Amino acid sequence: MAKINQNYKKLQGSYLFAEVARRRVKFINDNPNAEVISLGIGDVTRPLPEAIITGLHAAVNEMAEASSFRGYGPEQGYDFLLNAIIENDYQARGIDIKANEVFVSDGSKCDVGNIQEIFSLDSVVAVTDPVYPVYVDTNVMAGRSGDYVKDLNRYSNIVYLPCHAGNHFIPALPDKKVDLIYLCYPNNPTGMTLSKEELKKWVDYARANKCVILYDSAYEAYIQEKDVPRSIYEIEGAKEVAIEFRSFSKTAGFTGVRCAYTVVPKELLAYDEDNNAVVVNELWNRRQTTKFNGCSYITQKGAAAVYSPEGKAQIAKLVEHYMTNAKIIREGIAALGIEVFGGINAPYIWLKTPEGMGSWEFFDKLLTQAHIVGTPGVGFGQSGEGYFRLTAFGSRENTEKAVERFQNLRF
Amino acid sequence: MAKINQNYKKLQGSYLFAEVARRRVKFINDNPNAEVISLGIGDVTRPLPEAIITGLHAAVNEMAEASSFRGYGPEQGYDFLLNAIIENDYQARGIDIKANEVFVSDGSKCDVGNIQEIFSLDSVVAVTDPVYPVYVDTNVMAGRSGDYVKDLNRYSNIVYLPCHAGNHFIPALPDKKVDLIYLCYPNNPTGMTLSKEELKKWVDYARANKCVILYDSAYEAYIQEKDVPRSIYEIEGAKEVAIEFRSFSKTAGFTGVRCAYTVVPKELLAYDEDNNAVVVNELWNRRQTTKFNGCSYITQKGAAAVYSPEGKAQIAKLVEHYMTNAKIIREGIAALGIEVFGGINAPYIWLKTPEGMGSWEFFDKLLTQAHIVGTPGVGFGQSGEGYFRLTAFGSRENTEKAVERFQNLRF
Repeated sequence: MAKINQNYKKLQGSYLFAEVARRRVKFINDNPNAEVISLGIGDVTRPLPEAIITGLHAAVNEMAEASSFRGYGPEQGYDFLLNAIIENDYQARGIDIKANEVFVSDGSKCDVGNIQEIFSLDSVVAVTDPVYPVYVDTNVMAGRSGDYVKDLNRYSNIVYLPCHAGNHFIPALPDKKVDLIYLCYPNNPTGMTLSKEELKKWVDYARANKCVILYDSAYEAYIQEKDVPRSIYEIEGAKEVAIEFRSFSKTAGFTGVRCAYTVVPKELLAYDEDNNAVVVNELWNRRQTTKFNGCSYITQKGAAAVYSPEGKAQIAKLVEHYMTNAKIIREGIAALGIEVFGGINAPYIWLKTPEGMGSWEFFDKLLTQAHIVGTPGVGFGQSGEGYFRLTAFGSRENTEKAVERFQNLRF
Repeated sequence: MAKINQNYKKLQGSYLFAEVARRRVKFINDNPNAEVISLGIGDVTRPLPEAIITGLHAAVNEMAEASSFRGYGPEQGYDFLLNAIIENDYQARGIDIKANEVFVSDGSKCDVGNIQEIFSLDSVVAVTDPVYPVYVDTNVMAGRSGDYVKDLNRYSNIVYLPCHAGNHFIPALPDKKVDLIYLCYPNNPTGMTLSKEELKKWVDYARANKCVILYDSAYEAYIQEKDVPRSIYEIEGAKEVAIEFRSFSKTAGFTGVRCAYTVVPKELLAYDEDNNAVVVNELWNRRQTTKFNGCSYITQKGAAAVYSPEGKAQIAKLVEHYMTNAKIIREGIAALGIEVFGGINAPYIWLKTPEGMGSWEFFDKLLTQAHIVGTPGVGFGQSGEGYFRLTAFGSRENTEKAVERFQNLRF
């Protein structure tokens, strides 16, 4: 008799963005004339830059001729893309990463979701709170979470590291033993960053305790301030303890194209049950070669165009566009007396809900009174209660309109 | 301290095709002037048909304009593709499958590798032997396999269903309790099929024992004979017990483009630890929405073009091309007195190694004497020992040359 993975029963409700979409659709159905502006899901809206379009078309043409047709490629990605990645994103910044330490995939959501598979089921997982729900849910599915404790809105075996205005969104080191630590900087959802000094504390902690840091850096391209680390490998010793996840989704508008990569340095070790050190790179390579068949050749050619001189210039403009939106939201809302965070090195603005409202209460008010969809902070964890996320990915027109509409809110 | 998933240590050697590639590269390095023909990995070689190229270019152009740009799509796939799939692959054949029972992905290898996640870790898994290694290895990684028993070349907790010339490659029903049954027809690696009567025995068995059949139908497009089932759902009651995996890889030359789909009927049930029935479709939906971000929009547009009148005609020609190769190999090798199977409804020819040679021994002989790369049958399981797989995916010229070279083999 086929039995289900019982851990799925521990998952809470539907995935956050599905619930947001459900309420949005209901509102639109009930109010067909309302012009709803979505600043909810972190999805880009600008078209792909010309250099990428050119790269994609060229790759499609190659697939039309027997002499240049490509079938299965390396599961880890083509050398032309791996080399562009290491040269531009690492070596150009003085970080020595080799091509065989990089694994190209069809998305960071897959990678950050799948990475836990190569670690023991009894690993203790630490996450910041609020947190991108995928880190938690994939560990719930695997059986590492313990039971859901309704009163706390938390799982019993997950170690939560609260981040809020009171601690300037800087998580404290765990006060109990942990094995795997998920960090995301620039942070989703708060839009906040860690300084090199703060990040160094985590690397040192992981080295001292033989933890692995799963470092999600999907928003790296949005960093504006010079002293903010763009890669965890800028920190000495990080290659011994950290896996870094990067994506073309937000960098180059690839949310619908699907390309990302994960760096697993050869120095990174974990331990078997006899405490023998194991090279984690080999485990991930085995996972990917067994369960994944490589990212589309066409997509990889598009991603490689990101690193051409034209591609770089065009992408810089894309980022500038979204970061101007971020500034408009940040300053416009702050002017109304609402406390705002993020939006300086990230396309996310994290606001303190006015009047001490709950996150979902504010979601409903914003939707019904201003016809704006955002994301309730509590959807990212209990420490997000009383906060709310807006994204800078809307059109300029909608972004400006949304800020105006904030003035119409009645409390 | 980060501990590894100890199950990875049970995996045997490298993934089969990696070992084949290793020996191939070594031979080429040692014999730089040898003209090696690869009939090993099941990878297509013909360019993408024109209708698909046109569809891909059109989608790339859409991504270049803000008005038609697509970001994140539905994790399950776009309606335009889901509807084309159910209308053409199911409803046109009298099978009632709904769009919300279909999940588009970036490849069947991912889907058949990931599907086990939604079932209990103590599920007993049955596989045919020989078998596509992904079914076994992904269950080893998850911890369902038990230990590897070297003398048997098998895992202790996996139920193997031998398929060989002696039973006409028709697996017998398991003689012990199993929960999940992987079937692949047309079969990889043997190229053999099951009749409706034989497949019905499996559906009936699964219904009687509340098992789930994981039915890999990646080679369906190659079926030539009328009475061979093209979908397991042609069998009455199969929707209660079977998940079907389909791919555009071999159908339409998408091995480098990456698109596949999985059908999980709403009727399909599995059971929780209190024996309550659970709708498996909802589990897979949760898995996909949490760990996957949808298949590339551009790719899905290319896949939809497969179902256009031009696309269908062009794909039929592709399949005809490969199946003519299959006939050339099958008949050419049989004429030398070698016993051959498959190659009639599948692009794989499964041959009995001459003179009772071992599979790897024959691999080395074929490589060194005829400069042909094939795949050793034993790589697919112990019952594949003494067999060898050739694929029909080479160019016509190489296929004909390879058959000629078979005559040069010295035993």
